[in-house]
Order: sequence, then structure tokens, then C-alpha cells
Amino acid sequence: MLKKKHAQCLATDMEYSLCRTARALVPLYAAKGDSPASLLSNYPNPGPIIESLKLLVDVMFPGKMSEGPVAADELGVFLTRRLSEAWRPLLSQIERALPFRWTGAAARTERKRTRPPANIRREAIKVMSAFYDRLAHVRKMLIEDVRAAYEGDPAALTFAEVQLAYPGLLAIASHRLAHELYRLDVPIVPRIMSEWTHAQTGIDINPGAQIGHGFFIDHGTGVVIGETARIGNRVKLYQGVTLGAKSFPLDKHGHPVKHVQRHPTVEDDVVIYSNASILGGDTVIGHHSTVGGNVFLTETVPPNSLVTGKHPELKVKTRAGD
Amino acid sequence: MLKKKHAQCLATDMEYSLCRTARALVPLYAAKGDSPASLLSNYPNPGPIIESLKLLVDVMFPGKMSEGPVAADELGVFLTRRLSEAWRPLLSQIERALPFRWTGAAARTERKRTRPPANIRREAIKVMSAFYDRLAHVRKMLIEDVRAAYEGDPAALTFAEVQLAYPGLLAIASHRLAHELYRLDVPIVPRIMSEWTHAQTGIDINPGAQIGHGFFIDHGTGVVIGETARIGNRVKLYQGVTLGAKSFPLDKHGHPVKHVQRHPTVEDDVVIYSNASILGGDTVIGHHSTVGGNVFLTETVPPNSLVTGKHPELKVKTRAGD
Amino acid sequence: MLKKKHAQCLATDMEYSLCRTARALVPLYAAKGDSPASLLSNYPNPGPIIESLKLLVDVMFPGKMSEGPVAADELGVFLTRRLSEAWRPLLSQIERALPFRWTGAAARTERKRTRPPANIRREAIKVMSAFYDRLAHVRKMLIEDVRAAYEGDPAALTFAEVQLAYPGLLAIASHRLAHELYRLDVPIVPRIMSEWTHAQTGIDINPGAQIGHGFFIDHGTGVVIGETARIGNRVKLYQGVTLGAKSFPLDKHGHPVKHVQRHPTVEDDVVIYSNASILGGDTVIGHHSTVGGNVFLTETVPPNSLVTGKHPELKVKTRAGD
Repeated sequence: MLKKKHAQCLATDMEYSLCRTARALVPLYAAKGDSPASLLSNYPNPGPIIESLKLLVDVMFPGKMSEGPVAADELGVFLTRRLSEAWRPLLSQIERALPFRWTGAAARTERKRTRPPANIRREAIKVMSAFYDRLAHVRKMLIEDVRAAYEGDPAALTFAEVQLAYPGLLAIASHRLAHELYRLDVPIVPRIMSEWTHAQTGIDINPGAQIGHGFFIDHGTGVVIGETARIGNRVKLYQGVTLGAKSFPLDKHGHPVKHVQRHPTVEDDVVIYSNASILGGDTVIGHHSTVGGNVFLTETVPPNSLVTGKHPELKVKTRAGD
Repeated sequence: MLKKKHAQCLATDMEYSLCRTARALVPLYAAKGDSPASLLSNYPNPGPIIESLKLLVDVMFPGKMSEGPVAADELGVFLTRRLSEAWRPLLSQIERALPFRWTGAAARTERKRTRPPANIRREAIKVMSAFYDRLAHVRKMLIEDVRAAYEGDPAALTFAEVQLAYPGLLAIASHRLAHELYRLDVPIVPRIMSEWTHAQTGIDINPGAQIGHGFFIDHGTGVVIGETARIGNRVKLYQGVTLGAKSFPLDKHGHPVKHVQRHPTVEDDVVIYSNASILGGDTVIGHHSTVGGNVFLTETVPPNSLVTGKHPELKVKTRAGD
Repeated sequence: MLKKKHAQCLATDMEYSLCRTARALVPLYAAKGDSPASLLSNYPNPGPIIESLKLLVDVMFPGKMSEGPVAADELGVFLTRRLSEAWRPLLSQIERALPFRWTGAAARTERKRTRPPANIRREAIKVMSAFYDRLAHVRKMLIEDVRAAYEGDPAALTFAEVQLAYPGLLAIASHRLAHELYRLDVPIVPRIMSEWTHAQTGIDINPGAQIGHGFFIDHGTGVVIGETARIGNRVKLYQGVTLGAKSFPLDKHGHPVKHVQRHPTVEDDVVIYSNASILGGDTVIGHHSTVGGNVFLTETVPPNSLVTGKHPELKVKTRAGD
């Protein structure tokens, strides 16, 4: 009888409730390994990952995530400081994430070596250097993305507006950064980045998605771009577009098979209007095509196509008015 | 003539503008009671409610909302501290919310006693204890939800990824907590919790919705689950799914009638693909059924059904290419 | 050879990586003017703009964005303090934004004078005073919006709940404030405000949209209302509704033409159900009409109409059950 035994020290209702609740909870956490009940103790920590992502977005667009103007003649100093501030938190979390390369479903796939290297820290530093070496490339891509947003939206009157207020730009900036980590085979960390961006913008781009230059998403809420989607250059999407999977195969254990192309290919110069769904790993939207609003498409269309839905017939009943 | 009279003390344009604006605004607030013009003074305050929700999510997944790893041998201490930190802010806001049990539309329904009890604080403590007694149950449910997400998404390579990066998991964790308060007949507080979660994830689950174990929402942006929806075990939803109302009856005063089942029932082992809308309180999706993407469904389907839309015919016009 | 030259001072991998990355990045930013590569230095800064927006939302609903109750007899003091706190950050950013009135695409339109006035600060103060003079009007509109939400949702049991937990109310409060700045021809600042709101609520209302009184958006995720939309009184929208453009004309330089009505007109007392898309600047929804869920509408309908989609026929295949 817990109540009796502790009656003396657990004086208040609150104290008794806390004690009882904690005792009931403690057995429900697994201290080790990777399981549905695992404690998050040995997992990468989202806090420092998001902190470093924001710093790197601020490197891509100096002043976007920080207050105070950046003087042009101090740009080098500013960039070095930001890069330096992002290095340590990101490195430490990559170090915590790397062991998961060889864990779980990853271990079941062919691509993975079966054992982690002896020196995880050295591997993490190698990854960080390789990642930073890609930042100038990412910045170049993002300049084209700003231009694409300006050209693609009649409401955009200045490049300033695009840089400061377009959620699609934040989404693609964050994605291009996360994608470089994905390419370097860093587990978990890029997904934490993409989910932060999803929460900010309503745009859910899996870090695995390959996206060409001059990319623009307008409005963006509800956009979903799957892990194995491939998107060409100068592609434009509107809100609610899904580039998704049709269904997915299970392995002999009944687990979903990972790392198969499950999402569509979109070639250069394609426009996809709001709430269209394009599904399936074999589906290819040929270059210079346009897909209309609300279209549900699971088959390949050739280049230069205009795909429109025969929208469901509407019934309009008009009452005798007042 | 305000301007003349105050010309001496209101020296600047700013001072004059502030004074004029405040004078025009003051009469536009009702100091007492619950009306469209009410001051929020006597209402529960969202700040402490969200603070306590985050602490309790951190109890469910230690480390998820806080930095710093939790050592396994300090788990009991950690949980007790978090539970204790959440107690006071939540208790105080439940105390402010409880009087609304007997206010407004609530008072018009049969379920409610017509007068508040003498001792609101005692009632609030009773509610808090009952709520905490449910936390171990909630934790058990959430472990099954983590497993369901892992099994349900080929992109999930580790349980770590699910725990750290899946918005659907945050949404269901937060919902399961808010739902316990809803069941304890706490007004307003659970809705403030669900709206915080909605803002974080784009997933809008009314605290009243009843949801079985092993629940998984993938991507999630745009999901709406209404107050009186009933969802079985091992159900999986994708982004943009609405479980909504068709229309709702008005009472003799022209006010909407509250507390009628207005939202669908979804039985065990159902999958509902992206952007499907299922509407109406009489609509039942039988167990082991699958509802395809973009389906608009307002009628019951039997168990083991596959419901697909005849997607609108597409017109594909292809220009002579370059 | 950078590596050799700096080998002595760049002792660590980190130092070398930072140096190399910063050197590669520095040439990729344009110090002056408004271009896709511009530094954000001379642009308005989102930080103070959002800060002032939150303060003004707190003026509209005292206590909504701040902690601690507001005593009724201190209301005047509270409002004056909040108005005063919002004045300086907003004024400074309006001052930074005003020069963009005469820049970029804006300069190509007829409405704009071709040169900025000599005294930008004086113009900014004039704008601020005119903006504050509208706040009492905005508050009056918002009281009607609270009432509309309560009447429009059976789940709303109290006005408290609407004021504290409805994202649609935050969206319209923020929009009504941003719209006043838009009407005063302030560039960029209102768009930064509307994007903050979009990130909070999933509701994307361009500051240009004209919206009558008693407006209610339920759930709201995915709603998009374009810049030139015109919405009457007592209109109600559900989640995922788009009031958008069909396509837009390009000028002789191939740039999109700005400032043409590209978005629909919705007259008084219209209800538009979830995920309906209404497109085009010539499209008018006559008063007292109802547009059903998922309807895709690009043509005008007369007053008192009920517009429903013939929803795509469903195929229901039921397996022999277990």
C-alpha cells in the first residue's frame, strides 16, 4: 500500500499524485538501443540541429534569421562567424547520428556497410568538411530560386519581398542544406531539419528528394515531396501538390522495403497547379508540361503536355432570390 | 477639441497618435462575462497551458522537448521533476477554466449541472490527480504509435527518426494528453493545447476525438479530425484527410446544437489515403477497409472494402515538341 | 594554394574548412540594390515587424499574446503602453520599406509616382498615424469576427474558446492589421506580417485581399486568399479553400503584369466548404450562395445558388470478410 507507507512524507495531493505517476511511468522506457520504447538519451538532439540550420540559412541569406544589418565590408567576418557558430552543434549531433547508419532498417539494405568505423568523430569531421564545401554551390542555387519566385508570382514586386517573406524560399533553402547531408549519408539529422521546415512552412520535402535549379513553390501549405522524387530545372509548384508513392512493397518479414524509387520524376520546365497529386515511382512528367489544379495522375505524360482534369460536373441550383 | 486641449503635453506626433488611438479603443472592450467583446483577463492563459503541455510531452518522450540527455538511472528523478514543473501552471489554468463548464452553450446542454461547485480549487486538484493517473496509459499508447509509424513508412529507417522527427507523433502525443482533459470535462484548456499542436504540425485534431492504439498520420498537413469522430485501432491516415461534419442542426434560437455525433466512425485497421474527405456522423468505415486518395465519401462502407474514386478523366494535349 | 599558405595559422580541420567556405561564399552576394543576390542589409527586418504585429494583436485582444491578466480599470494604460511599444519598431521598418514603393515591378505600374519624397521619415510618421487611426475600426470588425466564429462552429462552447484557441481569428486579426498598411501603400512590411500568420496558422491571406465583416475561417490549414480577392460580409470558409488566380498575363518584357484583378469576388453571406477552389478575376460568387466541398469553380454563379460537385463515382469492392 503505497499510500499508507508514504503517508508521512507525501503530505499533499500533488506530492502523492506525482509519486504515483512517476512510479507507474518508469518501467515504460527502454534504456538502450533503438526500439519504440527507447529513451531519447543517445539519440541526436533536435535543439542544436535546428540552431545550426538557422545559422546556415543565415549564411545563405545574411540577416534572414538574425537581427541587425550585415555591412558589406564585414561580410567575410560575418560568414566566418556564422559558419563557426554552426560547426560545433552540428558536428556533435552528426557524431551522435552516425552510428544509426548501421542500425535498423538501414542494416537490412545492400548499400550499407555492416559495421561502424572505429573513429566516429573523425568520420563526423570528414562529413562536416564535405558539407561545408558544398555551401557555395547551395548559395548559387538559391540565387536562382529567388529569381524564379520573383518571375513566377505577379504579387512579388521586389526581390526584397521574395527574400524576406516567401515560405517557399525558406523551404528550398533548408531543403538544399539538408539534402547535402542526406547525400553524405548522415542519418536522422537531415530529417529533423526537414521537419522543422515543415512546421514553419507547411511544406514537407524529404531530404532525399533531388531538385534542380530555379525551383519555386508558391503558397506551399500542404506540399509533400517524397524521398525518391526527382525534379528537374525551373519547376514550379503550387500549394497542396503531392509528389507521392502509390503503395510500397513489403519484404519477406512484412517490413516495408526501403530505398526503392517510389515517387515520380518531374522533368525541366514543368508547372504543377494547386492540389494536384502525382503518384508512383514509374510516373514521369515530361519536360515543358503543365499539370492542372486538382489533377490526380499516376501515369507518365510525354514532354510538352497539358494535363487537365475534366473537373466533376457542377450542379448549380439557384433559389428564387430575395 | 482633444488636439487643442492637450497640445501642451502631447508634444510629438507619436504621443498625439497614441493618445487618440487609445481613447478610441477603450470603449470597445467588455470588462465582464463571456461575450464577443470580452477582455481576456479572466480567461485561462495560453502561455502556462502550452508550457505544461510541452513538459508533459517531455514526460512521454524524455528529451523530445528539452535539451540534454536523460540518464537511465535518473529517469525517476527526471519524470518527477517534469511532472512537478507541469503541475502548477496547469492546475492554475484549469482552475480558471472550470467555471466555463457552466457557461455559454455548455449551459444549454443536458449534460451539465447548472451551477459551479463551491470549491473550484478542490475540483481542479481532483481533475489534475485524475489526469496524472492516466499518464502511464497514455505512454503505453504512444509506444504503439511509434511502432505504427515505423511500420507504416518506408522512409523511416530507425525508431529514433520516428521519435524525433515525425509530426504525426507529436500530434498524437499532444492529442492523447488533451483528450484525457476533455474526458475529465475541462473546458477550453484542451482546445488551447490542440491549437498549439495544429500550429506546430498542420494537424487539427479536436480533443474530443476518440482514437484507438497504433495510430499513424504520415506527413499530416491539412488533416482535420472533428470533435465527435471515433477511430479504431491501427488506423493510418495521410496528409489532407478530413473526418468532418456534413452540416449541423440549429436549435430554436438559431444556435448550432452542440454535442451530437457529427463526425464519422472509422473502425480498426483502416487506411485512408491523402486528401480523402469522409463526412457525417452516420458514416462508418468498416474495419480492414482502404479509402483511396481524394475520395469524397458521405456514406457507410462495409468491412473489408476498397473504396476508390473514379478519378476525373484527364485530358492530355501534347504540343509538337521541340 | 590556400592550404599551404595558411597552413600555419589554420591549425585544425574546422579552421581550414571555415576559411575555405567563407572565401568561396563572399563573392556570391551583391552589396547594393534589389537583386536576387542582394544582401538583406538595407531591407526591412522581419524581427521588429513581427514584434510589433504581436503587440498590436495584443491591443486587439488584450492578453492574447502576452501573459498576465489585464485589469479593466487599467485598460487605457495597458493599451497606450502596447501602442507605444509597437510604434518605434514598426516605424523604423516602415521607414526602411518605403523606398521600395518606387522600386522594381512597382516602378513599372501607373499607380506609382516615379520618385521617393525627400523626407522618408516624415512620410513614415504620417503612415503610422494614419494606421493607428484605423485601429478602433479594426477592433470593431474583430468583435464581429469573434461572434461569427462562435455562431459558425458547433464545437465552440464559449466566446473564450474562440478568442483563445481559434487560428482563424488570429489569421483575420493579423490580416485586418496588415491590410491597413497595404492600403497605405506600405511595401513588403504587410507581406512579412501575412507570412508570419501563414506560418502560425496555415492560412495564407495576401494583405491586399478585401474582406467584409463577420468573417470566419474554420480549421483553416491550406486556405489561400489571393491579393486581389474581394470578400463580402458574413462569409465563412473551411480548410483548404483557395480563392486563386487562373493564369496571369505577361508584359512585353515577359514579366508578369502586376495589379490586375486576378482573384475572385465572393459576395455577402456565402459559405464555401473544405478544399473548394475558386479561380479567376472574373469569377463572382453571388450573395447567399453555398459552394460544396472539393468543388472546382472558374465561373460566376448567381446569388442564392447551391453549387455542388457531382463527386466522382466511387468504386466499392468488398472482400469476402473474415
